[in-house]
Amino acid sequence: MTLLVNDPADFADESLAGFAAAHPDEVRAVHGGVVRASATPEGQVATVLGGGTGHYPAFAGWVGPGFAHGAACGNVFSSPSASQICSVARAAHNGGGVVLGFGNYAGDVLHFGQAAEQLRAEGVDVRVLAVTDDVASGPAHDTARRRGVAGDLPVLKVLGAAAEAGHTLDEVHRLGLRANAATRSLGVAFGGCTLPGAERPLFTVDGGRMGVGLGIHGEPGIEQRPLPTADEVADLLVDGILAERGAAAGAVDGSDRVALVLNGLGATKYEELYVVHRRVADRLSSEGLSVIAPVVDEQVTSLGMAGLSLTLMFLDPELERLWAAPAVTPAFRRGHLPPRPPRTDDPTESRSTPPVVPGDGPSRELGARIASALGTVRDTVAAHERRLGELDAVAGDGDHGIGMRRGSEAALSAAEHAVGLGAGARTVLARAGAAWSERAGGTSGALWGAALTAFGSALGDSGGADRARVAAGARAAVDSVVRLGGARPGDKTLVDAAVPFADRLESEAGGPGLARAWAAAAEAARLAAEATASIPARLGRARAHGDNSLGTPDPGAVSLALVLTALTPHLGQENH
Amino acid sequence: MTLLVNDPADFADESLAGFAAAHPDEVRAVHGGVVRASATPEGQVATVLGGGTGHYPAFAGWVGPGFAHGAACGNVFSSPSASQICSVARAAHNGGGVVLGFGNYAGDVLHFGQAAEQLRAEGVDVRVLAVTDDVASGPAHDTARRRGVAGDLPVLKVLGAAAEAGHTLDEVHRLGLRANAATRSLGVAFGGCTLPGAERPLFTVDGGRMGVGLGIHGEPGIEQRPLPTADEVADLLVDGILAERGAAAGAVDGSDRVALVLNGLGATKYEELYVVHRRVADRLSSEGLSVIAPVVDEQVTSLGMAGLSLTLMFLDPELERLWAAPAVTPAFRRGHLPPRPPRTDDPTESRSTPPVVPGDGPSRELGARIASALGTVRDTVAAHERRLGELDAVAGDGDHGIGMRRGSEAALSAAEHAVGLGAGARTVLARAGAAWSERAGGTSGALWGAALTAFGSALGDSGGADRARVAAGARAAVDSVVRLGGARPGDKTLVDAAVPFADRLESEAGGPGLARAWAAAAEAARLAAEATASIPARLGRARAHGDNSLGTPDPGAVSLALVLTALTPHLGQENH
Repeated sequence: MTLLVNDPADFADESLAGFAAAHPDEVRAVHGGVVRASATPEGQVATVLGGGTGHYPAFAGWVGPGFAHGAACGNVFSSPSASQICSVARAAHNGGGVVLGFGNYAGDVLHFGQAAEQLRAEGVDVRVLAVTDDVASGPAHDTARRRGVAGDLPVLKVLGAAAEAGHTLDEVHRLGLRANAATRSLGVAFGGCTLPGAERPLFTVDGGRMGVGLGIHGEPGIEQRPLPTADEVADLLVDGILAERGAAAGAVDGSDRVALVLNGLGATKYEELYVVHRRVADRLSSEGLSVIAPVVDEQVTSLGMAGLSLTLMFLDPELERLWAAPAVTPAFRRGHLPPRPPRTDDPTESRSTPPVVPGDGPSRELGARIASALGTVRDTVAAHERRLGELDAVAGDGDHGIGMRRGSEAALSAAEHAVGLGAGARTVLARAGAAWSERAGGTSGALWGAALTAFGSALGDSGGADRARVAAGARAAVDSVVRLGGARPGDKTLVDAAVPFADRLESEAGGPGLARAWAAAAEAARLAAEATASIPARLGRARAHGDNSLGTPDPGAVSLALVLTALTPHLGQENH
Repeated sequence: MTLLVNDPADFADESLAGFAAAHPDEVRAVHGGVVRASATPEGQVATVLGGGTGHYPAFAGWVGPGFAHGAACGNVFSSPSASQICSVARAAHNGGGVVLGFGNYAGDVLHFGQAAEQLRAEGVDVRVLAVTDDVASGPAHDTARRRGVAGDLPVLKVLGAAAEAGHTLDEVHRLGLRANAATRSLGVAFGGCTLPGAERPLFTVDGGRMGVGLGIHGEPGIEQRPLPTADEVADLLVDGILAERGAAAGAVDGSDRVALVLNGLGATKYEELYVVHRRVADRLSSEGLSVIAPVVDEQVTSLGMAGLSLTLMFLDPELERLWAAPAVTPAFRRGHLPPRPPRTDDPTESRSTPPVVPGDGPSRELGARIASALGTVRDTVAAHERRLGELDAVAGDGDHGIGMRRGSEAALSAAEHAVGLGAGARTVLARAGAAWSERAGGTSGALWGAALTAFGSALGDSGGADRARVAAGARAAVDSVVRLGGARPGDKTLVDAAVPFADRLESEAGGPGLARAWAAAAEAARLAAEATASIPARLGRARAHGDNSLGTPDPGAVSLALVLTALTPHLGQENH
């Protein structure tokens, strides 16, 4: 139970402040998280990790030479925002590109993905690595659906060690993916955990029982069963992981050497972990496996949750070298690295976005037109704010209208500011997207932000917009929404309107003019948005789940169609 | 709640085995605990720590270069036995003497003290350091009564660093005492903890309340009060410790620099500790204190207990250097020490007692007579086993008779074995004492073991026994019982019979012969033992506590008097 709290809303921030105060020689606080206090060689790839608060040492406790360059720290059990991630990444970047590493959760995938788009729009080379070690959260043939749990430690440790070794961005990313492919975890839980300020646990496990494969935020597991002995728990975990030994070891050419993490979730204590480890070590030995540099500790916790997990990473010589390499961080230390000089710049200065690099003449003109178009977006949203809220209230929390208004207002303001600084189209849209996302909040805000940013990246900061570039921008925007949001057509989201829009815009490429093409595409989006009220494939599922939105169109799809339609007059001329 | 258990009786042993398996490059398991896996320079003082299982990382997690040379690990929340401590100390000893360091609890004081006597009887120079940092457990004017809690970390870290620095035994001990005098802790708890195999917590704190100063085994604290905010907890801890700032800082000449340990007891998580630390750091800064190398972590836990404590050690330059010095152990790492070669001997071989160094002729003859006398002790105890058990059952658990029989049998057997190897008086009694203590168990067994050992140390392994030596041996034996057991005359323990015996034996030193003097002293012991049935000072207290032993003599005093009386015929001659 989380008891030591001031204002619960401040818990994550205050915890981060206390962490930074306790490790002044190791980390520096920046907006959204921490970076190393020591200097990193110019050109070294930066690894930036992150996730919700409540999993310490993950992720802030792993910042230091040989491991991470920075960590973005969200609210309790919530992904950091793209703005936080970008801030930490800018402060951590050494000119060698950035790998963003995190556990595979929808919120983290969305916000780290959005941050990646944002950073790329600023000219930073970025790769993304989502850890997927939890065998209980998805089938063996579809590991990409699995969550990231304590496998975060070995996978992200390998990632950091690869950066430390001086590998290129692509190579660091490749080694991280390879580590992830070779890593499997299985956990059990005996009780839930309580969020700061909450009266009741977030979830519970029945007394005297054990949840097998329960997620670290209480996500459903495989089953509940009566509480076994420590040795039986060890056997369950070993058997569960070794069932995938072939696939995991095969990912690195059949090694019989493994990294091991026996991880306590919070309330399960060290002595208990060691009792289990005694049996785990015996079992692995009798399976012919050699354990390299085992970690029996609390490394990925879940507030005060009772439970533990076993992680094995199958090793080839390269992974073994990286796993065993030195690392010196607040909560994970291995071996020795020569002391580094402190960084001499002020990392908090990188919190703000980088200065505007002016666009060329045509792109500056295009940027101004985009700002004007964003004024139309803001007006259109404001005119429909109430209706959008009402649509959202049928099946959601009714805040779609207010979120859209806040986002569109912030985007307009940021775009006008950028235009004043001489920005081209890419920069105007990147600033507008970042502002929309941060101010609107939620999934919808993140997707609008990513869409604007991706559109801008397709337009660039030089040259104007012809029909092909606008169509490519629309396609890039839709792709980013699909990639980040994970929704497919028919899921009753704004994707249902966005995909027909991009498709139609492309197919009109040979037609009589951009404004006519846009109008036709916007009409396709409007029809598709209305059709979300009666998607046949969803009928049965919606009824089964008590969904009362049958017959109501999706507010996200509706707002997109409204905006696209309203923008048509802005597409009245093409400039080359 | 401790849930991961096989047979609860095996919990401590299995946990230790799993710990050793997880840290093969750092520690080696020996009987009773662990020692460093790396070699220590010849002549370096060895620091041997210990206490009950359930406080990890304390104490096994602190074994390594720069910190401890070994740790003795008792059962859950129970002191290690003298036999365990001696085994670890023998394996850790490098020829430079041993400091035994532990928290100040009655059981630990008894068993570490007994081990010290035993090791001295084997020719090892030993010092003892009991940590007394917990301000809630005794008044400021009587710090020797205070318990040891998380102050174990800085005090014993300084001790280990002093040994690492190459100081002499006396100097290491002095620095440890100095560190202890400058260290204060205060803790709060929000809930109890459950022993392995138990259905219910060992103790509880009412829901929504906080126990101030509650001990790590549930010992009573100062008060209970409603649960405050994190900042209020920080203020309470800071204020409680700074109330003794003058005395603690004065012990090291008024420093404004402090070591800090903000320690979680198990269920209170890292994020909560950091929220509290944020406020603690602010408060200390505004008090003009500089914090050196803070530790915000779980370092002295109490199974899954919810709570935390704040420890400050006021620093002079010497303590600061030792506190900040490098240490590389499984659970506490700071800085860097060059890799050490592994120890090349087999530390488990030191588990057995060292080989017998033969005594000279008269002492071997005396050793044989002692073995014969121990036969009489065994016979006397066996004849009275039932009566001793009945006496003990009035106020105790009735096992005094069986404990005495087991102890006296084991002592006789060990003594006869030593005589066969040519041992002198000291060695015969040291072996007998160790065997008695280990086989009898309990406080009574430990005190009998220590008494025999101390008697032997006074006799030595050369020369015979005259009246003065026997009287000195008796006095040494009684002193060891008083020192270890902590009881005073009038407390209705075997001390009530032992002190009159030693007094009378000394006062008879000028009389007509050893046998007559012994007989008179034994008679004094018998009368004193009988008098324990009606000690006036205890009457009121006993009635108030529902003690039903009024009118019954203390079984420990009775058994001592019986044995002393039966031994009289063995004192029939003096040899010079």
